[in-house]
Amino acid sequence: MAERLGYPAGTRLLILHADDLGVAHSENAASITALEKSPLNSASIMVPCPWFPEIAAYARKNRTMDFGLHMTLTSEWKNYKWGPVTSKDSVRTLVNGSGYFYALVDSLQNYADPKQVEIELRNQVKKAYRSSIDVTHLDAHMGAAASTPEFTAAYMKVGKEFGLPVLLDGRVYAMEHDGVKNLLDGNTVVVDRILYMEPHTYERGAHKFYSDLLKNLEPDLNFLLLHPAYDNAEMQAIAIDHPDYGSQWRQADYDFLMSGECAEIIKAQNIKMITWRELRDKITRAK
Amino acid sequence: MAERLGYPAGTRLLILHADDLGVAHSENAASITALEKSPLNSASIMVPCPWFPEIAAYARKNRTMDFGLHMTLTSEWKNYKWGPVTSKDSVRTLVNGSGYFYALVDSLQNYADPKQVEIELRNQVKKAYRSSIDVTHLDAHMGAAASTPEFTAAYMKVGKEFGLPVLLDGRVYAMEHDGVKNLLDGNTVVVDRILYMEPHTYERGAHKFYSDLLKNLEPDLNFLLLHPAYDNAEMQAIAIDHPDYGSQWRQADYDFLMSGECAEIIKAQNIKMITWRELRDKITRAK
Repeated sequence: MAERLGYPAGTRLLILHADDLGVAHSENAASITALEKSPLNSASIMVPCPWFPEIAAYARKNRTMDFGLHMTLTSEWKNYKWGPVTSKDSVRTLVNGSGYFYALVDSLQNYADPKQVEIELRNQVKKAYRSSIDVTHLDAHMGAAASTPEFTAAYMKVGKEFGLPVLLDGRVYAMEHDGVKNLLDGNTVVVDRILYMEPHTYERGAHKFYSDLLKNLEPDLNFLLLHPAYDNAEMQAIAIDHPDYGSQWRQADYDFLMSGECAEIIKAQNIKMITWRELRDKITRAK
Repeated sequence: MAERLGYPAGTRLLILHADDLGVAHSENAASITALEKSPLNSASIMVPCPWFPEIAAYARKNRTMDFGLHMTLTSEWKNYKWGPVTSKDSVRTLVNGSGYFYALVDSLQNYADPKQVEIELRNQVKKAYRSSIDVTHLDAHMGAAASTPEFTAAYMKVGKEFGLPVLLDGRVYAMEHDGVKNLLDGNTVVVDRILYMEPHTYERGAHKFYSDLLKNLEPDLNFLLLHPAYDNAEMQAIAIDHPDYGSQWRQADYDFLMSGECAEIIKAQNIKMITWRELRDKITRAK
């Protein structure tokens, strides 16, 4: 992949990515600051979420920035909810009795018709285009859209329709599903590693986790995802009873990005920053 | 009305009411504190809004409190949006091209089919009951549900179906509409005055406006509505470019309620506080 993008083999490529834009004002505000003032160079937007219009307005005005869509099929927080972009009657298998997405990926896997997953994913992309966002890629909130071979086929199909790379790693090659196999071709972007902090590493310190990770980054295409947000009243209320990926966690992600050390390590390690826009234009849309 | 509730004629009755619960965490948190620690004694909830689950959980646990529904047909803020509870295909005339409610009551009046208004209002009530809220009344966000005779007939009809009083004042008697006239009967609650701060009075000082109003309250059934919320990052972002009923305005409403003076005036003036639950049980549901 490095060579196809014009870099020597063995180059350590990095997309430094913020997930969950649109979920909250706190998330939007912190992610925008990190995109403008830290090495963070890519982000993805949750179209069904209440704060989508805020980040869509920003994306329209900042067209060189790298904004993809965080395909959303779950609504995981306890007291703050959203549902599909599609008219609910058309995607009944994606929603619970209150009309919201399920909280858990498990529930989605149990109940969702993959055809309805495809409809909803397509409508999220259409809504983003109607909002004049120059979409650079698709990825999957909580991994839901790539959590079964059937959903993955829908996710890849929608990406193909719009000429967009979708976040996938090597696990896609193990999926015994014709819909997936038929969509894998020379234009498919498959990243070498999807990297993110987990609860057991968070406990040992976010700053140490991220700085060690960057110092020991392996060659080829690395995708590091974070969730920058401010640890404030809004985010605390959203993440109530959920410390993992919660309000303090997101503040720690923001703090690492904004620390001088994040930029210094990337420079000292000669890590080459790339964006989904490059992948879209040089790989996915290559003739 | 005072006598029907068991008070001497000429008693000054007051419902001190918070609108817009569910719109934001800031609004929920400030309104809950004011309900617990100030003379505020009633509130209404916006069922379609993202923070509905938070206030619904609180209402379930605090069943003696007076919670009604703030029937919502508009989504008025610039960067933060919601849409109908009903599947969008069934209420197409209530939503814009992005699937949200219109921002303006004018747009609703221009485009909405009153039959679809009725469907949506009914589904908001049903969803609140499914969330186990002991609904005490209905009122109308931005007055939208009572802004035309046709909408008012739908709003009153839905109230009647569930045995709930709906907020109306004397203007209802002037509506030349059979649906409205046929629903007016001895069980209808019509308040004598709907009182609230407006931009020109806000400019002269919220505290002075509210304290003067309470000191000069007229006899019979007064409904005073406020919008308590905290002037914080979330509320500022919601109300961006909209100082009227904006973040500082809502903080001023909260501050007045929580000031000792609000309680002192009510006591000194011998104002009798009543709730929608009393009106519901003694008037709307009287045999």
